[in-house]
Amino acid sequence: MQPALTFGNYQAHFVDTLQQLEAHEVWQRQPFTIVLVDSNTRAYCLPRLMELAVFQDALILEVPAGESTKNLDMCEHIWESLLAAKAGRDAVLVNLGGGMVSDLGGFVAGAYKRGIPFINIPTTVLAMVDATVGAKTGINLGGVKNSIGLFNEPEAVFFHLPFLETLPHEEVLSGFAEMLKHALLSGQEHWDALVAVGPEGIIANPELIIRSLKVKQAIVGQDPLEQGIRKTLNLGHTIGHALESESMRLGKPLLHGHTVALGMVAELWLSMQILGFPQKDFKAVSNYLLGLYGSFLNIDLSLDNLAELVGNDKKNRSKQFSFSLLQQFGKPEYNCNVSREQLLEALVYLRGSL
Amino acid sequence: MQPALTFGNYQAHFVDTLQQLEAHEVWQRQPFTIVLVDSNTRAYCLPRLMELAVFQDALILEVPAGESTKNLDMCEHIWESLLAAKAGRDAVLVNLGGGMVSDLGGFVAGAYKRGIPFINIPTTVLAMVDATVGAKTGINLGGVKNSIGLFNEPEAVFFHLPFLETLPHEEVLSGFAEMLKHALLSGQEHWDALVAVGPEGIIANPELIIRSLKVKQAIVGQDPLEQGIRKTLNLGHTIGHALESESMRLGKPLLHGHTVALGMVAELWLSMQILGFPQKDFKAVSNYLLGLYGSFLNIDLSLDNLAELVGNDKKNRSKQFSFSLLQQFGKPEYNCNVSREQLLEALVYLRGSL
Repeated sequence: MQPALTFGNYQAHFVDTLQQLEAHEVWQRQPFTIVLVDSNTRAYCLPRLMELAVFQDALILEVPAGESTKNLDMCEHIWESLLAAKAGRDAVLVNLGGGMVSDLGGFVAGAYKRGIPFINIPTTVLAMVDATVGAKTGINLGGVKNSIGLFNEPEAVFFHLPFLETLPHEEVLSGFAEMLKHALLSGQEHWDALVAVGPEGIIANPELIIRSLKVKQAIVGQDPLEQGIRKTLNLGHTIGHALESESMRLGKPLLHGHTVALGMVAELWLSMQILGFPQKDFKAVSNYLLGLYGSFLNIDLSLDNLAELVGNDKKNRSKQFSFSLLQQFGKPEYNCNVSREQLLEALVYLRGSL
Repeated sequence: MQPALTFGNYQAHFVDTLQQLEAHEVWQRQPFTIVLVDSNTRAYCLPRLMELAVFQDALILEVPAGESTKNLDMCEHIWESLLAAKAGRDAVLVNLGGGMVSDLGGFVAGAYKRGIPFINIPTTVLAMVDATVGAKTGINLGGVKNSIGLFNEPEAVFFHLPFLETLPHEEVLSGFAEMLKHALLSGQEHWDALVAVGPEGIIANPELIIRSLKVKQAIVGQDPLEQGIRKTLNLGHTIGHALESESMRLGKPLLHGHTVALGMVAELWLSMQILGFPQKDFKAVSNYLLGLYGSFLNIDLSLDNLAELVGNDKKNRSKQFSFSLLQQFGKPEYNCNVSREQLLEALVYLRGSL
C-alpha cells in the first residue's frame, strides 16, 4: 500500500479496501457522522461506504450533481438540515464526491457552529489530484467562481482508486488537465510520462496520480495560504476560471479541467510573449491541449466579459491583472503583470485556435 | 493612555483621539478600505471617522441596525457589493458599530475570497467588553443565534470611549450585563465594584471596562477555540441565546445583554441546585439582575420552544444539555450536565420571578 502523504496538519491515505477507513480515530472522537453526496456518488459510491459499520447510523445529505450546486442557497439548505438533525460539535462531515462536493462541504463544515471537522473521500481524478488536498474550500457567488470560501483543512483524505472506474471519459479528461498542469510546473519528463499514457491510461497507472499529488504537496507545503509560490498552481486558472464562470452564466457549463486546459493555452501564449517560454514547447503543449480539450469550448467568447471576470478573480490585486506564468517547463513565475491589451490578445489567440 | 491589550495574534488599542488610528500599518498594507456601518453608526460615528485621511476614499456599506440584520441574505448582499467594487486581497473591512456589525463583518471578511483582514471599532459597551474581542464571528440561521460563523481574528481593535456617550440607556444596560457576567466569573469584589457605580456609572469609569476586558482576555488566552475553560464565558448564554432567538422569532427582539442577564438568573438557579452556589449570593445577584432587566422580558415563555432552542445551541453536545455554571463567585465550571427536567424547572423559576 502507498504510504500516506502529509499536507499541513492532515494526511491523505491510500486505502485498497474501504474497510481501512474504519481504523481512523475520527469516528470515535466525532460520533455523529454526516455524509454529503451528489446524485452520482449516491448511486455509484455511497452503497460501498454504507457497508461499513461506522456509517450505519450516518445522516445522508444529497445535493444535485454539477458545479452550479456550489451556491449560497445550497449552503443554507445544508446548514438547516444540520440544525434540524441537531448536529453539534460532535459531528463530522464526510464529503463523498468530486471537487464540487468537497469545495461545498468543506465550506459548510468550516462555518457550521464555527467549524466542525470534515473528511474528504474524492471520487474523481480531479478531486484526487487537486480539489480535496490543499485546504481550499468555497462556493460561487455573483457569477464569480469560488468567490466565497475558506482555507479549511480536512481531518483526513482517503483515496480509494476503484471509485475512478465508474467515471465517464470527460470526467477523467477534466482531472487529467490538472495533472498536465502539475507536469508543466514540474518538468518536461513528467509531461512526457503523462502524454505517453494519455488520459485513459492514468487509472491503470496510479503512480501518475501520486506523482501529481506530490507536486501539489511540495508547493502547498511551502505556502499554504497562497501568499507566494502557491500562486504558481493557478497556471491556467485565471483565464480558466473566467471561461468556467462565463460558461455557467450562459447555461452551458464546462467542466473545471476543460476550462483550465484551455486557460493554459492562453496563459502559455502569454508566457511566450512575456517570459520567453520556448516557441517549440508552446506549439507542442498547446496542440496537445487543443486536441484533447478544444472541442469542448462551445460558447461564444465575449472578450469584454472575460476580461471583467479576470479582473474579479481573487488571485488578482485590484485594478491590475496578475498571472502565474511559465518561463520554461518546470520554471513557473507568479505575480506577473499582464496588461489588458495582452490579456485580450491571448484571448483572441485562443479563440482563433479553436 | 491605557496600554494595548493583546488577544491571540492581535491587539486592542485605546485611542483618545481617532487620529491615533492612522498610525497603524494596516492602511499601508491593505490600501482598499471598506467601512461597514449600520444606520446608527452611520449617523453618530462615521462622520468622526471620515475626518481621517485614510478613510477619504473608503467604500461605505450600510446595513440596517438590529440583530435581525445578522442573516445570510445580508452576507450575500455585502459580498455582492464587494465583488461589484472589485475588492481584492488588498482590501480591509472596518466594522464600525456594535456586536451585530462586528459579528456580521467578521464573518463576511473571513469568507470573502477565502479571507480578507478586518478591523473592529466597537461603538457600544457590549461590543467593547465582549463582541469585538475574542475572535468569534457569526450570523443567525434557522432561528438559531450565531449558528453559522467562524473563529476569525481581527487585525486590530480600536476602543474610542467617547463613542459610548451617544448610546441610549438600554444599550448601556445591555453591555453592563456582560460586565456583570465577567464579575461573577472573577469574584465578589469585582461584582461589588460594578454594583457600586451601576450601569450609568461605567462610562465615567472606563477602568471598569478595562477590567472586564482583562477577565475576558485571561480566559480566551488560555483557550481561544473554546475547547474547555472558554466555555465558562457562556454563563447565562445558553438560556440567554434561547430567549434571544425566541424573542426574534416572535418579532419582539430583546437586546443580547438583557437576555444574558435573564439567562444568568436561570443558570444561577441551576448553579444553586447542581453546584451548591450559595443561596444568599443567589438572592442578592438575581434580585439585582431582575431589578435591572426583568421588565424587558415582554414575551410569553414557551418552555418547549426554549428547551428545543437550548438543545440546538452550539455549546451543547447533541442529545444532552451541557451548561457553564458557577460554584461560587469567581469559581465557574463547564460541561455541567443538566437534565431536561432541571432546565424546565429553571425556566419555570425565571418565569415566576418576573
